[in-house]
Amino acid sequence: MAEEKKSGEKGFGKYILINELKDKYSNAFSGEESEPKVSNILYLEGIHFNLMYFPVKHLGYKSVINAIADLYARGLKPENLYVNIGLGARFKKKDIELLIEGISLACKKYSISIAELDISTSLTGLAISIASYGRKEKEIKRSQPAATDLLCVTGDLGAAYLGLQILERETKVFEQTGGAQPELKGFEYVIGRQLKPELKYDLLDKVRDAGIKTGIIRTVRDGLASEILHIANDTGLGCRIYHDKLPIDRETEAASKELGFETIISALNGGDDFEYVITVPVKQHELIEKIEGISIIGHHVPKEEGNSLALQDGSLAELKAQGWE
Amino acid sequence: MAEEKKSGEKGFGKYILINELKDKYSNAFSGEESEPKVSNILYLEGIHFNLMYFPVKHLGYKSVINAIADLYARGLKPENLYVNIGLGARFKKKDIELLIEGISLACKKYSISIAELDISTSLTGLAISIASYGRKEKEIKRSQPAATDLLCVTGDLGAAYLGLQILERETKVFEQTGGAQPELKGFEYVIGRQLKPELKYDLLDKVRDAGIKTGIIRTVRDGLASEILHIANDTGLGCRIYHDKLPIDRETEAASKELGFETIISALNGGDDFEYVITVPVKQHELIEKIEGISIIGHHVPKEEGNSLALQDGSLAELKAQGWE
Repeated sequence: MAEEKKSGEKGFGKYILINELKDKYSNAFSGEESEPKVSNILYLEGIHFNLMYFPVKHLGYKSVINAIADLYARGLKPENLYVNIGLGARFKKKDIELLIEGISLACKKYSISIAELDISTSLTGLAISIASYGRKEKEIKRSQPAATDLLCVTGDLGAAYLGLQILERETKVFEQTGGAQPELKGFEYVIGRQLKPELKYDLLDKVRDAGIKTGIIRTVRDGLASEILHIANDTGLGCRIYHDKLPIDRETEAASKELGFETIISALNGGDDFEYVITVPVKQHELIEKIEGISIIGHHVPKEEGNSLALQDGSLAELKAQGWE
Repeated sequence: MAEEKKSGEKGFGKYILINELKDKYSNAFSGEESEPKVSNILYLEGIHFNLMYFPVKHLGYKSVINAIADLYARGLKPENLYVNIGLGARFKKKDIELLIEGISLACKKYSISIAELDISTSLTGLAISIASYGRKEKEIKRSQPAATDLLCVTGDLGAAYLGLQILERETKVFEQTGGAQPELKGFEYVIGRQLKPELKYDLLDKVRDAGIKTGIIRTVRDGLASEILHIANDTGLGCRIYHDKLPIDRETEAASKELGFETIISALNGGDDFEYVITVPVKQHELIEKIEGISIIGHHVPKEEGNSLALQDGSLAELKAQGWE
């Protein structure tokens, strides 16, 4: 589901193009004042997912997760989905049923409904577009970004990316051996994070209920590093995160080891985490620390200090979207 | 832009599938009570448009028209667009600029803004998804459907379809001759309707301002016949439309003649008209007649009488999505 994101730079590079377009056609972009009530995603076969190892029911489920993730980050309660599907000729009626079944399971889980469904043919692969609408439920208490703010993240990082790598490896083995059963044992968690991600909106509720004023809340979709750079860009501040503070599941570590990956790279750049990264005023340190499932991973620094990853030996490495240098 | 719609039955046939899915997963479809505030379209290269003869700037413009058309039909004022674009490798930076330029021209014309823009790569062709959000401005006065209601339509029918046929013909000539200049003279109107359609929202405003209670308002997108069948389906009533009442532009007639088409088939099934079909209580006959640019094309009949096209000799032909029989 995260093929595009293997090269992290690309994930961030597109924002340069988008920002250029926003500048060039700025009149058209006067847009919504602050936090859009609608989120719209476009999922394309071969780019965002591979049906070789991605069961179509899970794809439906995950598309919804992807569609509504940002609404929670904006303090909105998702209510309705507007679904458009382009079907390739290979796609059978059973497949479209499974896709809608996956979507409807996510609807049930997150108490939302499909308001509109449209289907057309597609010359090539499967294309899924889901717009979602969210209603303002509670006011989010906002804080102005400050160079002392804490950087926090929900859950753990890199698992979905490792799940993808395991699935890809087993698909290759399957192809090369003409049908060997995949070895997925011991990797249920990372594969689950890839195939059936869930959103930690309950943790965002806890943050609000604790009276914590959040500066920025972003969905970690293209990897933590990319989101941190966005935050630096949006706030005009620098960011420092600490290698040994990054929350990583044991199974993510084990999968990294088995595949010969560096865990830290997966944690920084693995796509599809669907965690939330949050900035919090340092004086609310004790409140955020009490919330189980949220880790303080770093803090803002003055802009001049740039964006860095503090390594275990105390040295600083420059943080880039594809990792660090 | 309307390639899929050449076979009209297909256009309606997909609704059978959609209705089956809605039945099967009805829990997920409890949806918005009446008129969704969001509309979402998915435009796929090779299905909905052909870049051989569709200039990319016009494509951007037309995508917006397509995205917002239904909001006006629901009595909403479009406010914001949420744009997602999948770019094939052939697509150059200049092309994406032209696409956004077309979108921004439509934004200016219809006083809307792009709230979000995202871009990803696409393995195949260009994919455009635009969700639009509309705000309730005025309450629409609604009437309950009655077997005596009038069926009305804005503007004229079939022009965009003939424009498409002319463009396709000239593209073929261009290819076969290795570059002959296209002969488009005398077809500016029909080609304009295909490449740069506009919405008659002002006529809908006039209907409301005149105090007319509308039963149903639908965008004519897959051809009039398909919309009439939808209305019959939604109201549980029959529909009768009159051949000699269908509004057809002189240039549409001329293009039909030149291409050897039957004008009536284009008027009933040509896609991308972007007109509005409206039902109105018969007692408001005089009010609707006064509005220039709206034609009364028929009326409801009891369900038992079915859906028919009254021909000039007074006989009735059964109305089907692909024309009549």
